[in-house]
Amino acid sequence: MRVRKLPWAEEYLPKQAALVVNCQDYKGKWKELLGRDQIHLEIGSGKGDYWKGMSEKYPEYGWIGVERNTSVAALALKKVEGNDLPSRRFICSDAKYLDEWFEEKELSVIHLNFSDPWPKKRNMKRRLSHHQFLEVYRKLLDDDGKIIMKTDNTQLFEFSLIEFQNSGFHLDEVYLDFRKEEHDEDVITEYEAKFIKKGQPIYRGVFSK
Amino acid sequence: MRVRKLPWAEEYLPKQAALVVNCQDYKGKWKELLGRDQIHLEIGSGKGDYWKGMSEKYPEYGWIGVERNTSVAALALKKVEGNDLPSRRFICSDAKYLDEWFEEKELSVIHLNFSDPWPKKRNMKRRLSHHQFLEVYRKLLDDDGKIIMKTDNTQLFEFSLIEFQNSGFHLDEVYLDFRKEEHDEDVITEYEAKFIKKGQPIYRGVFSK
Repeated sequence: MRVRKLPWAEEYLPKQAALVVNCQDYKGKWKELLGRDQIHLEIGSGKGDYWKGMSEKYPEYGWIGVERNTSVAALALKKVEGNDLPSRRFICSDAKYLDEWFEEKELSVIHLNFSDPWPKKRNMKRRLSHHQFLEVYRKLLDDDGKIIMKTDNTQLFEFSLIEFQNSGFHLDEVYLDFRKEEHDEDVITEYEAKFIKKGQPIYRGVFSK
Repeated sequence: MRVRKLPWAEEYLPKQAALVVNCQDYKGKWKELLGRDQIHLEIGSGKGDYWKGMSEKYPEYGWIGVERNTSVAALALKKVEGNDLPSRRFICSDAKYLDEWFEEKELSVIHLNFSDPWPKKRNMKRRLSHHQFLEVYRKLLDDDGKIIMKTDNTQLFEFSLIEFQNSGFHLDEVYLDFRKEEHDEDVITEYEAKFIKKGQPIYRGVFSK
């Protein structure tokens, strides 16, 4: 998803109540900060539709969105402006620092939605389901922890099925055309709706430690 | 695939050189019979396009097709009439007897092509990728043995990915739109061509012991 650089974003972001800046200060303390026993983390939240929708659908969990692009993150935070929920926060930084922000076993569920497929082989390591990332997720997830991945990208999902397996994750559920049936339990983002309209299948996998 | 009962099939079948009737007599002796070191078995060969095509493309392997429907098996054998290859044979019987026909580790590759999806839950055990079948395949495959599965059926492939995993198979390769690229190494059957024409994706998995 490309968004042109928004000149107001840099200044706007730090003023938002939902934004957490010094993430490392909350390492091991996120449950306390969000006031919830179980923390869901979405990596690559984009414009925040899923993060916003799910945090309102499931207020019993804590919800943290991560998006590294400043302009995109600003659009996400704009959506929840004046609508603060103590149980949701946002991080505008790169997922490569995850283990500086979270303690081992601090997370219950990690969501990967329509992540950048990085189709070229030389960029493989940047895919959020590359085994180097999976190893970090495994560390940060609690013993019942799960990763839920959704994508429209065939090659990325093929790659991911094998990466998850080879990193020792168990495939609990798999959908090769997730939106063929209704799934009210899961928020449809604008981005996802576009693909559904085109008739492209949405892939979804639930993986456990 | 439905074929009306062919009145000539019953009489025609036993006269075909490629048909093996007393399979149990060859238990442990198939390599000798076919004169090949590696045996490929296709379960549910239907009208035999894949079995015929692959045995001609890869004559260095032995190829055995299995089809329980007499009329369908007769159509398969008609395709190779007068075109005997020592390295290919056909069995007209039910795959539930597999372990009476083959010795442990006698097979190199098992092919499952467009198997009946048996969509109803109560018929789950009949699916050729149900774990009860997978346990038998595992026994009959040699240590480097593989199962190659192809299907157009979304639910069957979803089910199979999980069954294979839970039976201890390793997912070596997975394709969620196999015919998007050319795969000259693999024969396209008439049945498969129909689905490709409709624009439906073909799923393919390669699983190893």
